[in-house]
Formats: sequence, structure tokens, C-alpha cells
Amino acid sequence: MSQTNRQFVLGKRPEGKPDRDTFELEETGIPEPKHGEVLVRTLFLSVDPYMRGRMRDRESYADPWDVGEPMAGHVVGEVVDSEHDDWQAGEFVFGNGSWSEYATLDGDDLTPVEPSANVPLESYLGVLGMPGRTAYFGTREVVEPTPGDTVAVSGAAGAVGSTVGQLASFAGARVVGFAGSDEKVDYLEDDLGFDAGINYKETDDYRAALDEAAPEGVDGYFDNVGGPISDAVFTQLNVDARVAVCGQIATYNDEGVATGPRKLPLLIPSRARVQGLLVGDYVARFEQANARLQEWVESGDLVHRESIVDGFENAPDAFLGLFEGDNIGKQVVNVAEPSE
Amino acid sequence: MSQTNRQFVLGKRPEGKPDRDTFELEETGIPEPKHGEVLVRTLFLSVDPYMRGRMRDRESYADPWDVGEPMAGHVVGEVVDSEHDDWQAGEFVFGNGSWSEYATLDGDDLTPVEPSANVPLESYLGVLGMPGRTAYFGTREVVEPTPGDTVAVSGAAGAVGSTVGQLASFAGARVVGFAGSDEKVDYLEDDLGFDAGINYKETDDYRAALDEAAPEGVDGYFDNVGGPISDAVFTQLNVDARVAVCGQIATYNDEGVATGPRKLPLLIPSRARVQGLLVGDYVARFEQANARLQEWVESGDLVHRESIVDGFENAPDAFLGLFEGDNIGKQVVNVAEPSE
Repeated sequence: MSQTNRQFVLGKRPEGKPDRDTFELEETGIPEPKHGEVLVRTLFLSVDPYMRGRMRDRESYADPWDVGEPMAGHVVGEVVDSEHDDWQAGEFVFGNGSWSEYATLDGDDLTPVEPSANVPLESYLGVLGMPGRTAYFGTREVVEPTPGDTVAVSGAAGAVGSTVGQLASFAGARVVGFAGSDEKVDYLEDDLGFDAGINYKETDDYRAALDEAAPEGVDGYFDNVGGPISDAVFTQLNVDARVAVCGQIATYNDEGVATGPRKLPLLIPSRARVQGLLVGDYVARFEQANARLQEWVESGDLVHRESIVDGFENAPDAFLGLFEGDNIGKQVVNVAEPSE
Repeated sequence: MSQTNRQFVLGKRPEGKPDRDTFELEETGIPEPKHGEVLVRTLFLSVDPYMRGRMRDRESYADPWDVGEPMAGHVVGEVVDSEHDDWQAGEFVFGNGSWSEYATLDGDDLTPVEPSANVPLESYLGVLGMPGRTAYFGTREVVEPTPGDTVAVSGAAGAVGSTVGQLASFAGARVVGFAGSDEKVDYLEDDLGFDAGINYKETDDYRAALDEAAPEGVDGYFDNVGGPISDAVFTQLNVDARVAVCGQIATYNDEGVATGPRKLPLLIPSRARVQGLLVGDYVARFEQANARLQEWVESGDLVHRESIVDGFENAPDAFLGLFEGDNIGKQVVNVAEPSE
């Protein structure tokens, strides 16, 4: 076991697009667990678009990160040393960790991870982690697809969108996804069962493309992206449409307030309901969600993919790639291999 | 009884702001009721902001008006002649009529109007008509105020807003209203029991004004106006806020699509729910709403006011005045006096 620990801290707050200088790599010692804590060796680290918000010096639903402090992140890891009765060395766990190779975490906050043939370790950061649960609750509680509905999804090939589309499809809806490459569109249509995919980088007229893919309008919209894609979708909302606003990655790097076409006037003829979504609001039902998701994943009904960047030192690139649309499915960083 | 009938038809579709040329006054004969119809003499005619939408050649929730055809409108009138068993000459009725002095209406579609000391005839176009019901359902079903909430209302001195604010106040909320003159703000604060009024024509910084009037943020917002007022309110939404989008009069005269600050990103931290509102969706419960509203009006608990423009020929001015904020409470046109 290496005697040094590496961690990324917030080097400086980005203005506009983050870059490598946003992150600073530090070498420290491996911490020792206190009573009730567990020393976890990171195997997979999650990088997520919402982290861009925590780089700002502004209160929001998640506290801003401090410059010079380790950045938080979900991890799947292996217990190295435990001062908590529930955990023993060698067990796999999911936890709210940080961008580090080792971390001491409160044993009460860890949950067990059980990999199997269809469920690799890293999927606990994706379809069986926060993104999967976000898709689950957002689809069921906000978008509420029913047979005959048309559901549109932006960021459709991403960790959340790819699950949303499949769940909407299970519910009997026609599903249309926006994604940023032909490869992603093929993934939507061939692997995930979307009825149509739109490569938004290949068209200037999102509205016309959507009108072709969804000629009967949009009854449900799960928005991970915002910006011009959402501008187009809002013009096509049917009466009683439901919109889940989950992510707005198109605007996360904006300084100041972005402008766009006004949407409130469109809500009166459609009587659409537009609702912001944070998965943390559903924490009381996470277990229920994971049980369902696990069943679907184990059976192979729910397809998932993880984009894996190898090497802890490449975590910043994995994060930056989210804004370039590099990933298909959940973006994770493979930090280390299990010890056995 | 006069032997001629006057009516306004849509003279031409306005581009931008309507003006007198939008309307054309025609003289015709008085129609004769067929079997099942009732000849109604208009006493009061309602002019409403939503009518601007019907002047466009575009399908929406209400059909566009045809150029050269009489414009539709709610009326309170007196039965002159009836070919329907339910109605007799001399009775007062509410109906979906038109901008005309006389009209033959389907007797099945009329509802009785019973004026009393606290309830003049014209209030059946306001607090006991479509605007009152809009306020009732929008407040109860979308804004859902509870004690301790802060509710903001735009167009607060108008027919809908003035009722919304009072209903939210009945429910225990702190109520803040935006209106366009000091006289209106006084009306809100002194007569309607609003906790604070903001004269938006006297400030450039709506957000700061709102922050002062609603220091704990906004839990419910009933929007009749849109534009920069809504831009400000959306920045102040608390977690789980509810927004009813009822009207967007600030944008009704825009040609093309107006732009403004993007609001979807604000919905994620607040998890706000934003919903378009059309009172017609609640038609099954109109009777329930009117019973409650009538009780409150009769008791004097629910204050209402009508702005009356005299003379049928002045109906266009009454309509145009809506966009200048001329009215306090419901704008109506007094077309004629009851015959007795």
C-alpha cells in the first residue's frame, strides 16, 4: 500500500469555462480513521456537471467549495481500515468522498456495493447511484409519462438522460432524445430503445428537427441541458405537458445571466407544469428506487454504460470533458483496482 | 327600444400595439331569436387582456377572430325576447356574447345574474365572473398559499390580481403586489389588505424593491404581467415555490419572440413549480367557486372594484386602456341601463 495520498483541491475559481488551472494536485499523507470512521481507498470517482456550481462563490443548494480545499465527490471504494463496527477491510462501499485516492469517511454514511455480472462497481456511481435515482424520481414524479405520450430528453446519452428515456419507454411513451454526435444518436436508437434521436450539432433548426421526430408535440420533457434545445422544446409543448428541469449544462459556464426567448407566455396555452428537480428531496425513498433500478439492471432491461477515464491524475480532464460532451453514459474516473 | 344595433368588428389585425383602427363600428339590425335563443340587450361588456391574443392569426387556446367578424366578449345583459323556456323578458343574464348592443344567444349557455346591495350587475364580469374564478382556482390550486408564506402578485390592482392577493391573505400569507401607480399601491395597502405594494413605475430595480418588501423571499407568485417584473420575482423564489402563470400582458403586443433572462436555471436550486393557468380547465367547479366568492363579496370580506367606461362607442378605448394600466379592478364598458 502506497504511503502517499494524492488529492485535487480547488486551485482557483474559474471564470467561464474551467480548465486545468481550476484544479491543483496535492500530495499528502494517508489519513487515519478516528472512532466511527472508515479509511476508504477510492476505486472510482464520479465527476458531475453540478460540480461546476460548487466552484462559484455563491450559496446554492450545495455549499460552494473553498479554494485550497479538497473537492467533494461520490466515490466507490474499498475499505482499507475501519474504526466502525459495520465495516471491515476489503468491503466495497459507496460514499460521499472527495477527489482523493484515500479518505476517512463516517461509517454511518457509507452504503454497501455489491458488484455482479451485469453490475460493475462503477455503475454504483451511475445507473445505481445519484444519476439513476435522479432519472427515476424525475421521470416518475415530474414527467409522469403515460402510454401514447411523447417524451423529449436533452442530454439523452448522458448518465441521467439515458435512464430517463428508457424509463419513459417502459411507461409506454414515445421517446425522443437530443444528443451531440451520430455515435450517441445510434446508441439512443439502437441500444436504449429511443424512438428517435436528434444530433443537435448537425442541425441549426432544433424546432424543425423536433417537429419531425415528434410530430404530435411533446407531453413530457426531461431537461438536462437548457439553452437553445429547451427553447425549441418549449415551443412544442402539448396541453398539460410536464417539464422536469434537472440540469442546465448549456449555461453552467456563463458569467452573468444568459438571455433567451421568453418561455412563460408559452405556458398559458399549454398549461404546462415546469418543475425544478433535485434528487436529494427524495432521500427517504432512495432504497425503493435502488431496488427497482437494480432489478432492471440485473435483468438487462435497463441498459447502462460508463465512460471511464483511467488514472486519478486525469480526473480534471474527465470533468472538463463533460462540457464537451465527451461521455456516453456516466463519466467516472478509474482511480485504482480492487486489492484482490 | 332602438331599432338599430351597433357592433364592433375586428377592423384589421394589429401589428404591435392595437389602436382605434383595430376596431370597426358597424350598424346592423336587431337580430330575432330563433327557437332556443334569447335576445339579450347588453348592459355591461367585459374587455380583457387575453383578447389581444384573439386578434392574431394564430391558433391558440381561443380561436383567432376573423377580420370583419364581431368580436366575442362576456356580457351582462337583460333579456328582451326569449324563445327559450328558461328565460323571460326583463331577466338579467350573463353570457358569452360579443361587442354589440344586442345579440341572440343560446338560452342553454346563459346564467342568471342577481344584483344586490354589495353586488352590482357589473361584478358578474369581475369578481363573480371569469377574473374572480381565475383568481380562485389559480390561488387555491397552483399558488397554494399557507400561513407564513410570502405571495407576490403582478398586476395586483387588476381584476384578477386584486382578488388573488385577498385570497392569499385569507390563507394566512404575507402578500406583496406590483402595480403601476401610487393610487393603485394605496388601494392594495389600504383597501385590499396587501402587506406591501410596489409601484413598479417608480423604481428601476424591481429586485431590490421586492427584496425590501419580501425579505424572506417568495413562496408563491401569481403572474399576470410577465416581463421584467417576473424576471425579478424568479430570482427571489424560495425552495418549493409555486408560480401560476396566468397572464403576460407585458408581452402581448410584442411581434416576434421577446427575450429575457433565462429562468430555468433558477428552478433547480428552488425546485419551484411553474404552471400555466387557464380558468376554463376548472369549468366543472365554477359553481363551487362562485358560491364561495359570492359569500365573501356579500359579506364585504372580499373587496372588489370595477372601472367603468361609459358608452358602447368607447369600448375600444376601454380595451386599449388595459395596456396602459388605466383600470383599477375589473375594466367594463357600461353599454346601457336596465329598462326598469
